[in-house]
Amino acid sequence: MDILSVTGILLSIGALLLGNFLHGGEITALFNIPALIIVFGGTLGAALLQFPPVVFTRSLKIFLWILKPAQTNLHAQIDKLVGWSMSARKEGLLGLENEMSQEQDPFIQKALQLLVDGNEPEVIRDTLEVELNIKENRDLQAAKLFGAMGGYAPTIGIIGAVMGLIHVMQNLANPELLGDGIATAFVATIYGVASANLFFLPVANKLKHHIMVATQAREMMIVGIIAIAEGENPRNIELKLAGFLHDKK
Amino acid sequence: MDILSVTGILLSIGALLLGNFLHGGEITALFNIPALIIVFGGTLGAALLQFPPVVFTRSLKIFLWILKPAQTNLHAQIDKLVGWSMSARKEGLLGLENEMSQEQDPFIQKALQLLVDGNEPEVIRDTLEVELNIKENRDLQAAKLFGAMGGYAPTIGIIGAVMGLIHVMQNLANPELLGDGIATAFVATIYGVASANLFFLPVANKLKHHIMVATQAREMMIVGIIAIAEGENPRNIELKLAGFLHDKK
Amino acid sequence: MDILSVTGILLSIGALLLGNFLHGGEITALFNIPALIIVFGGTLGAALLQFPPVVFTRSLKIFLWILKPAQTNLHAQIDKLVGWSMSARKEGLLGLENEMSQEQDPFIQKALQLLVDGNEPEVIRDTLEVELNIKENRDLQAAKLFGAMGGYAPTIGIIGAVMGLIHVMQNLANPELLGDGIATAFVATIYGVASANLFFLPVANKLKHHIMVATQAREMMIVGIIAIAEGENPRNIELKLAGFLHDKK
Amino acid sequence: MDILSVTGILLSIGALLLGNFLHGGEITALFNIPALIIVFGGTLGAALLQFPPVVFTRSLKIFLWILKPAQTNLHAQIDKLVGWSMSARKEGLLGLENEMSQEQDPFIQKALQLLVDGNEPEVIRDTLEVELNIKENRDLQAAKLFGAMGGYAPTIGIIGAVMGLIHVMQNLANPELLGDGIATAFVATIYGVASANLFFLPVANKLKHHIMVATQAREMMIVGIIAIAEGENPRNIELKLAGFLHDKK
Amino acid sequence: MDILSVTGILLSIGALLLGNFLHGGEITALFNIPALIIVFGGTLGAALLQFPPVVFTRSLKIFLWILKPAQTNLHAQIDKLVGWSMSARKEGLLGLENEMSQEQDPFIQKALQLLVDGNEPEVIRDTLEVELNIKENRDLQAAKLFGAMGGYAPTIGIIGAVMGLIHVMQNLANPELLGDGIATAFVATIYGVASANLFFLPVANKLKHHIMVATQAREMMIVGIIAIAEGENPRNIELKLAGFLHDKK
Repeated sequence: MDILSVTGILLSIGALLLGNFLHGGEITALFNIPALIIVFGGTLGAALLQFPPVVFTRSLKIFLWILKPAQTNLHAQIDKLVGWSMSARKEGLLGLENEMSQEQDPFIQKALQLLVDGNEPEVIRDTLEVELNIKENRDLQAAKLFGAMGGYAPTIGIIGAVMGLIHVMQNLANPELLGDGIATAFVATIYGVASANLFFLPVANKLKHHIMVATQAREMMIVGIIAIAEGENPRNIELKLAGFLHDKK
Repeated sequence: MDILSVTGILLSIGALLLGNFLHGGEITALFNIPALIIVFGGTLGAALLQFPPVVFTRSLKIFLWILKPAQTNLHAQIDKLVGWSMSARKEGLLGLENEMSQEQDPFIQKALQLLVDGNEPEVIRDTLEVELNIKENRDLQAAKLFGAMGGYAPTIGIIGAVMGLIHVMQNLANPELLGDGIATAFVATIYGVASANLFFLPVANKLKHHIMVATQAREMMIVGIIAIAEGENPRNIELKLAGFLHDKK
Repeated sequence: MDILSVTGILLSIGALLLGNFLHGGEITALFNIPALIIVFGGTLGAALLQFPPVVFTRSLKIFLWILKPAQTNLHAQIDKLVGWSMSARKEGLLGLENEMSQEQDPFIQKALQLLVDGNEPEVIRDTLEVELNIKENRDLQAAKLFGAMGGYAPTIGIIGAVMGLIHVMQNLANPELLGDGIATAFVATIYGVASANLFFLPVANKLKHHIMVATQAREMMIVGIIAIAEGENPRNIELKLAGFLHDKK
Repeated sequence: MDILSVTGILLSIGALLLGNFLHGGEITALFNIPALIIVFGGTLGAALLQFPPVVFTRSLKIFLWILKPAQTNLHAQIDKLVGWSMSARKEGLLGLENEMSQEQDPFIQKALQLLVDGNEPEVIRDTLEVELNIKENRDLQAAKLFGAMGGYAPTIGIIGAVMGLIHVMQNLANPELLGDGIATAFVATIYGVASANLFFLPVANKLKHHIMVATQAREMMIVGIIAIAEGENPRNIELKLAGFLHDKK
Repeated sequence: MDILSVTGILLSIGALLLGNFLHGGEITALFNIPALIIVFGGTLGAALLQFPPVVFTRSLKIFLWILKPAQTNLHAQIDKLVGWSMSARKEGLLGLENEMSQEQDPFIQKALQLLVDGNEPEVIRDTLEVELNIKENRDLQAAKLFGAMGGYAPTIGIIGAVMGLIHVMQNLANPELLGDGIATAFVATIYGVASANLFFLPVANKLKHHIMVATQAREMMIVGIIAIAEGENPRNIELKLAGFLHDKK
């Protein structure tokens, strides 16, 4: 559970509401149904037009990483790869066949399969890198959905505000309605700018970060598998893979 | 038929009109012929100046992908490539000559031609990659037409608004016309911002997505054809090409 | 003669003037000498400071491509290259010496010279690619001049508007002058935004497109010359070069 | 101690306060608790949502580089590498084993380890470059935290201003409160724009500069270690590494 | 002496002042000490925080290129390289030793040194490219100082304007001061936008152009030196280097 994500959302919304309250503003002034419909209907409409269904489905799935990121234990993976390189030296590559059934990640399964089949290191690398790129690209597309919504929301907020102002301007004869009308118009701006900067854009960027981490873990897996295929000694493999760890000073 | 594209456009326009209605605005306030002429005449003029005729023609053609995307069945293509690799093993590359006439996509025809002619894998790759890049680049230019219009429309909307405001300012003597004049001026802003964010930019990006998918399918074709030319075994080819599939977990 | 370029400029200016007329605005309100001096004097000054003389000269030259693009007939060039490859097979590379004098493009002359001299393919490629990059880069710099002016003009338009508003604000005592003063101030904004979006930026992008086309034609020439130097058979050369053609489905 | 960093912050804040004072503005007008809560609470909330905990921790650590940059003496490192290359020529690579214990930087320790173990130059390079990239990427992520806050702060400042204006607009009945209300609303804009441009963005960029310098030093170490592994003569190594020095004319 | 740089600055400032004069504005309205302090104090403060001392020193040095660019005569350098290649053919590489003392550019000295020492072409290239990249990168950093100031100035101008408006808003009771107060506030915007667009950004871009030219000259030197080391014939070297010349049609 990613506490920071939840804390971040609560903190920013709380700060806005507290600031508004201390300012003397009434909270009801910030709720406005027409502005809500314009900003979020418009933003969703633009996103539906921009993205194909497959990206939408994937977006909903990876959105959960915000709350519960896929944990990748690089230390454990290094230990595993070093262990495989030892088995391979002792029992040959075929000795790794049993490991395959124990793996759940299809990427690692495929990597082991290619290794056990005795392919050339170059073939293994090419095959796994195609897979890596396709997976990374698919997830980046899904993360981009949130980035695109973060781009559309503020401009659609401006449309809402201008529509409100037009309404106000056409009723200048009732000056007592002026202030209230302008206030309502401005709420659309807040919806657009706040949803983009406090939700859509940070979410898109956090997803990009998780995708980068997953890609690095897969790159490490490729480096390790290639090293086993080339028969490097386990000590060197460990030294090489240790470079992927972040937590060293 | 891409339901999402149509839904997206209807949803965003519906949201704007519904929001305006709930706001108490009259729908007629959003229609304004001079603003229409300025924003769309100016945007089209800028696009005509920027793009050569050949890009315009292509843009009109690929715009239809928004409603009816070119379907590429990667699974079927993989089966086909694996089948070809088996024939090639049994009957030699010449055995693929009959396949050529059954293919409709000129890119695949050319790939088969190069294979049947017995060219070196390196020559096949170079030749097909030139074709891939030229095709991808041509379509990206066509998609960019919509992106460029999405860039020009809001700024030309601002020109329209400022022209309207100048007109208003010169008639400050008639204050009763003030509000109506400003309202009219603002409509140009809405036309510019809304057409860009609810139509031009999402369309440009969806087209880019379809181009990327088509390019990946062609890249898969190249990888498969090269693998056949290099005489890899069908099982490996299938494993390698499977990396291009999105739908695996 | 590029009809679209002229049509584009006429269409966008016509749309602005027609919109203004239908709006009820007087055309004289859009003409203002001080605004003209500020926006175009400032923009030209910034460009003079930014670009060295050699880029200016080249910009004036390639600007004419907007009206009369350099035509490159790729079909004819492919036929020529295939013809050369046949001569080279029959009479040896020296047989191409006569062709050189008939070529007018110094790039093609140089390519033939390198071929006839019997250089290694790698040497030919390196030499021609240096030339290709330098030429492309020089023309991109010249196109960038228009892009830079398109970047400066709107901000300098804002300077003009703010200077006008300052003048207005200092004469608030004469309210009857207010509207007229503001109107005049806004004209500078229109000059800046319109010149950028209806002229400078589309021109810069169209020039970039022409440069890309010229570069692709030179790249095709390099691929063809290298293939001749490597003694590939004419049929394969034709197949390879056909990939550069846009007009195939 | 980086005097310029401190001077820069003091100069820019001093300039703002002095300008405000000379302008006749009261300093108290620039302090506003609700604006403070909205801008910095919102910015921090967005950052918490965007970045994972590990990046936050690293950001706090490298922020100190603003005051006290990690000094890298390239001259000393070159002398050291040249010395090692001489020892290696005299006593073999094993003669460098003692040096390892004297090094504190784990990157240099690892480089020496790989050298002493007698690995192929290609293996040393691959292993060290993985480490280099991971370290550089981790630090760039941490620097990006400040860049992201510099991106969010001004837009959240606008949210604060619009919230303040809404409050003002709803109280137009009390015109004597108008000016004061607008003034308060504008303070949020100043907080957002000033914190971004006078603090967050310059800090992010200075950190990026320090990261680039550290990466160049590590690249120099890799070049030197590889040269020793390939047995180049010390004079050449010195000539090659001297290219990394900035201070030559 | 780069006449265009001086002309550019004088033209843009002259255009602003002339436009203001024709507009009927008084020149004194454009001078305002508090605005001056806020905009340039703030911009300088941000730059001091962002850049390390070594970049500042270099920036001051290369700023002079605006007035007096480093002239690089590519024709003369090609003649020199062709001459060296002839000497090398006649007297061997050692015959170039005398040339070294006559060269003043340390980059060319180093290139000759590497050549005379009889290094492998690959070693010469690697060594010179490290030097090339470090030099180019150092100068790009220095040019970026002006670009960064051009980025900060307009936003700090907005801070100045908003601070001025706050002051105005708090004195709405004295409406006769309103116009004058707003006018003063706007001057900060002009200082920020004008200094960025008429000075900082064009300067940064012209410096980038000079750096690109210097880098191309050094790349040409590397290509020539490598060709001599590989013993290519002088005629081919001349043909190859001619590609770096801009002035051919």
